[in-house]
Amino acid sequence: MSQGNRGVVYKGPGKVAVESIPFPELSLGKRKCEHGVILKVITTNICGSDQHMVRGRTTAPEGLVLGHEITGEVIECGRDVEFLSVGDIVSVPFNIACGRCRNCKEGQTGICLNVNPARPGAAYGYVDMGGWVGGQTEYVMVPYADFNLLKFPDREQSMEKIGDLTLLSDIFPTGFHGCYTAGVGPGSTVYIAGAGPVGLAAAVSAQLLGAACVIVGDMNPERLEQARKFGCETLDLRQDTPMADMLEPILGEREVDSAVDAVGFEARCHGHNHAHEQPATVLNACMDITRAGGRLVFLAFTSLKTRAPLPAKPGWVTCPCASGWVGLSRTPSIPVNVQ
Amino acid sequence: MSQGNRGVVYKGPGKVAVESIPFPELSLGKRKCEHGVILKVITTNICGSDQHMVRGRTTAPEGLVLGHEITGEVIECGRDVEFLSVGDIVSVPFNIACGRCRNCKEGQTGICLNVNPARPGAAYGYVDMGGWVGGQTEYVMVPYADFNLLKFPDREQSMEKIGDLTLLSDIFPTGFHGCYTAGVGPGSTVYIAGAGPVGLAAAVSAQLLGAACVIVGDMNPERLEQARKFGCETLDLRQDTPMADMLEPILGEREVDSAVDAVGFEARCHGHNHAHEQPATVLNACMDITRAGGRLVFLAFTSLKTRAPLPAKPGWVTCPCASGWVGLSRTPSIPVNVQ
Amino acid sequence: MSQGNRGVVYKGPGKVAVESIPFPELSLGKRKCEHGVILKVITTNICGSDQHMVRGRTTAPEGLVLGHEITGEVIECGRDVEFLSVGDIVSVPFNIACGRCRNCKEGQTGICLNVNPARPGAAYGYVDMGGWVGGQTEYVMVPYADFNLLKFPDREQSMEKIGDLTLLSDIFPTGFHGCYTAGVGPGSTVYIAGAGPVGLAAAVSAQLLGAACVIVGDMNPERLEQARKFGCETLDLRQDTPMADMLEPILGEREVDSAVDAVGFEARCHGHNHAHEQPATVLNACMDITRAGGRLVFLAFTSLKTRAPLPAKPGWVTCPCASGWVGLSRTPSIPVNVQ
Amino acid sequence: MSQGNRGVVYKGPGKVAVESIPFPELSLGKRKCEHGVILKVITTNICGSDQHMVRGRTTAPEGLVLGHEITGEVIECGRDVEFLSVGDIVSVPFNIACGRCRNCKEGQTGICLNVNPARPGAAYGYVDMGGWVGGQTEYVMVPYADFNLLKFPDREQSMEKIGDLTLLSDIFPTGFHGCYTAGVGPGSTVYIAGAGPVGLAAAVSAQLLGAACVIVGDMNPERLEQARKFGCETLDLRQDTPMADMLEPILGEREVDSAVDAVGFEARCHGHNHAHEQPATVLNACMDITRAGGRLVFLAFTSLKTRAPLPAKPGWVTCPCASGWVGLSRTPSIPVNVQ
Repeated sequence: MSQGNRGVVYKGPGKVAVESIPFPELSLGKRKCEHGVILKVITTNICGSDQHMVRGRTTAPEGLVLGHEITGEVIECGRDVEFLSVGDIVSVPFNIACGRCRNCKEGQTGICLNVNPARPGAAYGYVDMGGWVGGQTEYVMVPYADFNLLKFPDREQSMEKIGDLTLLSDIFPTGFHGCYTAGVGPGSTVYIAGAGPVGLAAAVSAQLLGAACVIVGDMNPERLEQARKFGCETLDLRQDTPMADMLEPILGEREVDSAVDAVGFEARCHGHNHAHEQPATVLNACMDITRAGGRLVFLAFTSLKTRAPLPAKPGWVTCPCASGWVGLSRTPSIPVNVQ
Repeated sequence: MSQGNRGVVYKGPGKVAVESIPFPELSLGKRKCEHGVILKVITTNICGSDQHMVRGRTTAPEGLVLGHEITGEVIECGRDVEFLSVGDIVSVPFNIACGRCRNCKEGQTGICLNVNPARPGAAYGYVDMGGWVGGQTEYVMVPYADFNLLKFPDREQSMEKIGDLTLLSDIFPTGFHGCYTAGVGPGSTVYIAGAGPVGLAAAVSAQLLGAACVIVGDMNPERLEQARKFGCETLDLRQDTPMADMLEPILGEREVDSAVDAVGFEARCHGHNHAHEQPATVLNACMDITRAGGRLVFLAFTSLKTRAPLPAKPGWVTCPCASGWVGLSRTPSIPVNVQ
Repeated sequence: MSQGNRGVVYKGPGKVAVESIPFPELSLGKRKCEHGVILKVITTNICGSDQHMVRGRTTAPEGLVLGHEITGEVIECGRDVEFLSVGDIVSVPFNIACGRCRNCKEGQTGICLNVNPARPGAAYGYVDMGGWVGGQTEYVMVPYADFNLLKFPDREQSMEKIGDLTLLSDIFPTGFHGCYTAGVGPGSTVYIAGAGPVGLAAAVSAQLLGAACVIVGDMNPERLEQARKFGCETLDLRQDTPMADMLEPILGEREVDSAVDAVGFEARCHGHNHAHEQPATVLNACMDITRAGGRLVFLAFTSLKTRAPLPAKPGWVTCPCASGWVGLSRTPSIPVNVQ
Repeated sequence: MSQGNRGVVYKGPGKVAVESIPFPELSLGKRKCEHGVILKVITTNICGSDQHMVRGRTTAPEGLVLGHEITGEVIECGRDVEFLSVGDIVSVPFNIACGRCRNCKEGQTGICLNVNPARPGAAYGYVDMGGWVGGQTEYVMVPYADFNLLKFPDREQSMEKIGDLTLLSDIFPTGFHGCYTAGVGPGSTVYIAGAGPVGLAAAVSAQLLGAACVIVGDMNPERLEQARKFGCETLDLRQDTPMADMLEPILGEREVDSAVDAVGFEARCHGHNHAHEQPATVLNACMDITRAGGRLVFLAFTSLKTRAPLPAKPGWVTCPCASGWVGLSRTPSIPVNVQ
C-alpha cells in the first residue's frame, strides 16, 4: 500500500508549507518495524512548542515535518502488533517509547532509551527528539504501537467526540500532569499561569482533582472569559496590582497551595509593561504566591540564563533540567536542547 | 535555677568570640514557654553553614549566638512537658518546630508556621531563622520539647557513644536525607560531591540504603582517603580528566543513578583551576554525570545568580528555592535569605 | 467553672439513658491536663459503631458515656494551649492523639501510643478505646487540643453550616479515607456497598476525587434515591440478579476499579434472603466485582470467624486486623476487641 | 532447529518423572510468537510452590511440565525481538507478562491481562496459571522476551556466578519484595518466619535495605545456623517459650517493626506440638509480635478456611486474596485457585 501523503514542513524561521511528503513505511531506516502501525490522521493540533520552532527560537532543521498531537485510524498493522486492528481509532501520546527499556518499565516513557540515538526521549516532528516524522500530515507511522497507542473502545462514539478526544494526545495530559505533579487534590487552592489550551486543560484538571478554588491568570480577556465559563476565578494580569493583592479577596489568603506555569519562556511581564518579554516573570510570580510547603510546576520551557533574581520566598520546584533550560514537566517530560 | 552561661558569638565577618551570655529561661519573649526544656549542652558541632555566616557571606547580625547542632542533658522541664525528664540525654534537630501546625502535621518541620514571625521555618543560632539562641553554649532552651527532642533510650550507652551520636542533630540526617531524596536504594550507583562531614555522612547513608557503588569526589586527598576506608570509590578532582572518564573504569558506565551535592555555593572548579571559586560547578557536574531518570539533590546553598550555563543533559532537580538561591535539601530544608 | 452536665449513657444491651454526669475537668486522673480544652457541644452524631455497642454486640461496660462525633465551642483552655481561644468553633476527630509519639509523627494518629494504657489508639466514648468520656453530652474535655482540634476559620459562617460541618468529625473523613485508600482517582469506577451516612459520604468523596462513575448498592430504596439525587448510579440489592450482571449495563464492564464496604459485620445477604444476617456477604461481593489490580477497603468491622469461603477472584485487601476481626479502614483505624 | 527435549512432569500426587517432551516452538497455539525466544536452560530451582503441587494439595493436572525458576541462554530469537541476541544469558521472572496491557504498564506484571485466558496472571509450569510449559527442562520458550527477560551484561562473569544468579528468577526477588512491602528500611527490626531459601533471601534483603536487626525463626537447627552465619539473630521455634519473650533479650522490646511470613500454609505449630500442621500459626505469630503501625507480609499461601481465630492485636495485613486463600505477596503476586 503506497500512496500520496502531505504534511506541514518547517521551512526556516517564520515559514511553514504544506508539501508532498513520502507515504510512511513500517520501517526504521533499513530495518522493518513490525511493531508499528500506519495511521490515517483524523485530527491534529498545533502546540505552543511548534510555535517556538516556527518562530526560529530553536535549532529545528529546515525540512522537519511538524506535529506531535495525533489522533488517527489504524490502516495497517505490523506483524508484531497484537492488540490493535485495522479500523481502530487511536490517540497517540506525543512521546515515543519502546515499552521495553528500564525507563519505560518505570513509567518514564518521556526518556525512553531506545527511540533516539542522540539522547533519551523522542517525539514526533520535534527538534532534537530523534528525527521522527510528525503528524501534521495525512498519514503517519507509529512504532511500538501496542505499547504507545490508546485505543478508543467504540469507533462511533469516538468519532462523535473526536474534537474533544484530540486533546488526549498532549494538551489535556500536559495540563493534568502539571496539576497532579503540583500536588493538587481535594480542597487545594491552585493558580494556573496562562489561559491558553494547556492552561485551561490544567484548570479543568484541577477541578477534576477536587480543587476548592482554581484561579487562572492571563492578559487576554477572551481567554479569561473562557476560564470563568467553567467555574474558575481569574486574574487580569494587564493590571499593575500585585498578585497577592488580587488573590486575597478571592481566597481570604495571599497564597495558593499549588501553582502551574502554562506560559513558558516567551512570557511577558504583567502590569503596564506586559508587552515586554521577560522569561522569568511567571516563575517568579508562582514562587511569590505559593505557600511554603506548596508546589510549583513548570509545564513549559523556561530559560535559566535570562532569569531575573528569584524572589525572597521558599518553595519547592519540581523541574527536569534540559540543556541549559529549567522547566518542563510535561507527560512525563521532553528534554530539548533549545539555545 | 539561674547561673552563668557562655557561648560562641558572631562578632562580624571573620570574627567570633566565646562570651558570657544569659542563662536560658523557659520563655518566649514575655510569655512562659512551658513546653520547653533547658539543656546542658554535652556536644555541639560547627556546620559549614556556620562558616558562611562567619565568613561574612550572609546578613547574620553581630551578636548572634551560633550553633544548631546540639546534644545535651535535660536539666529543667516546663510544666507541659510530658515525655521527658531531668537527666535524659537528647539529640536536638537543627530545625525548630511546633508539632501542631499544618506543615508539622505533614512532616514538613523545616517550614513550621509557628516558630518564626518573619517566615516559615526556624533554627537555633542562624541568620534569618527566627532569632533563636544557638547551642554552641553551655546551656540552651529547646521549645516544644516533647515534639522536637530525640531521647536516647539508655543514658550510659549514649554517653559511651556520644561522639557518634552528636552527628544525629544535623550532619548524619542531612547526608541521609540527601541520599534518600535522590532515590538511592538497593543496587544504586551514587556520586557524592564533597567529602566533608556531610558528604561522608551521605556516603555512608548510601551504603546503608543498599547502594551498589558509592563514589565520592573531592580535591582533598586526606578526605578521599577517609572515604576509601569505609568502602567508597573516590575521584580526585584536582585532575583535569572529565568526570565521566573517571567513572567509566569504576562502573563500566559513564553515569550514575543519583548524585548528591555536599559542597554548596563556595564550590571551586575541578581540575587545574580548582583554586578558583565557581558556584555552579558542582551543580553542572552532577547534571552531567547523572543518567536520564536519575535524581540530583543539592544539600547546600547554590547561587542561581552566578550560575554558569547548565550542561546539555536532562535530569531532575529536587530543590527548595529560597530567597534568590536554589538548593538545600536538608532535613527537611532551611530557607535562608542569603544575599 | 463547674456546672451541670448531661450525657447519653450505655445501660446494657438495648438500653441507653440521658443522665446527669460530671462536668469535665482539665485533668487526666489526678494529673492536670493543661494541654486540653473544655468544649460546649454544639452537634454530635450517632455512629453505626455506637449501635454495635448499644445492641450488646461488644464488651462495652455499662455506664460508658457514648459519642465520638463532636463539634463544639471552646469554653475553657488549659494553660499550655497556644493556638486556640475561648469562643472558637472546632471539629473533634474521633481518634484521640498526643501529637508527640512515633505513630502520631508518622500521621498514624489512630494508633497513638500515649492515650490508652491498654493498647495503641483511643477514642471518645468507645469500648476498649481508653475509657475517655464521650461527647453525646453537653460538655466534653479534649486533650492535646492544639494538635487534635480543627478550628473553623469564621465563627459566623461555621454556625450557618453547622449541620454540614458536623460530618467532619467522623462520617465524611471515614468515607473519604475509604475511597482514598481504595485508590479512587480521576476516571475510576467505584462501588460503594451501603448507602447509610458513611456510604453516602464515600460516594460523594469518590466524586470529589474525580471518579468517572460511582455505583451505590443498598436494600433500602429511600437511601438509594438519596444517592441518585447527587449523581450516583444505584444497585437495589433486594434483587437476586448477580452484581456483575447489574454492573454491566451501567459500565459496559462487569467489574469496578475500587470497592468500599460501608456496611460492616451486621451485613445481610442480598437477593431474596436479604433479611438474613451474613457477615461475609459484602466482603465477598466486593472481591467478586473488583478487577484484578483494583483495591477494596473495608470501613467497618467484619468478622473473620464467620466468614464464608472467599470467591475465586484475586484482589488486594487493605485491612487492619483487630482482635479476631478483619476490617476497618477508618481515619486511620480503630482497633477494637469486639467478641 | 528441532531436537530432543526432556522435562520434569507431574504424574499425580507424590509422583514426578523426567520424560521426553516436545522441543519448544515460537508459537502460541497456532499463532507464531515472533516476540519470543527459545532458551537452553542453564539452571532451575524447585520452589516450595512446586511441592504443594507435587504433594497433591492443588488441582494441578497430570502431565504438567513443572518449573518457574529459569536461567538460560538464548538459542533462537523470534523476528520481532529487538534487544536480545543468540548467546545472551538471561534470567526469567516467574510471572509471564505482555508489557502492553494496563496492568503491565502499572508494573503489575503478576496480573497481566494477556497471557492467561482464564484469569489475570500467568507463570511457567504452574497450576491454573495459563498452562505454560515449565522450565525444569532442557529447553523452554519465553514470550514477550524483550519485556520479560533480564539480560546479564557479561556472559563470562555471569557463568562464574550462575549459582547465585539463579536466585534472581524467584527466590531472591520474592524475599526482597516481602521485606520491601513490609516497609523494611534503615533501622528496622524485622522478623522473618521460616529459614528456607525464600526466608533466607528475605533476611539478607532486610539487611540490604538497612535493617538494624533481622531475626529469623524456624524449627530446623541447620537452617538457623545458616541464618546466623550472615549476621541474623535466630529463634528456635521448637521451644515453647512465647515469641515475645524470645524477642525481648535480643531487642530490648517485645515487638518488631515488620514481619514476613516465608512459611505458608503447610505451617506447623511452634513449641512441643510442632509436628502438627496448623495453617494459621505463622499469621497469628506475626500479628502477635508486630508493633501497631508496623507491617506484615505473607509471601506464601495461607488458608483462610482453616485459620484459627486471630489474636487480640492490631496490625496491617497487605495481602492479595486469591480464590479462597489469603496471602501471597510475591513479585508482585500469583493468584492461584488452590482448593
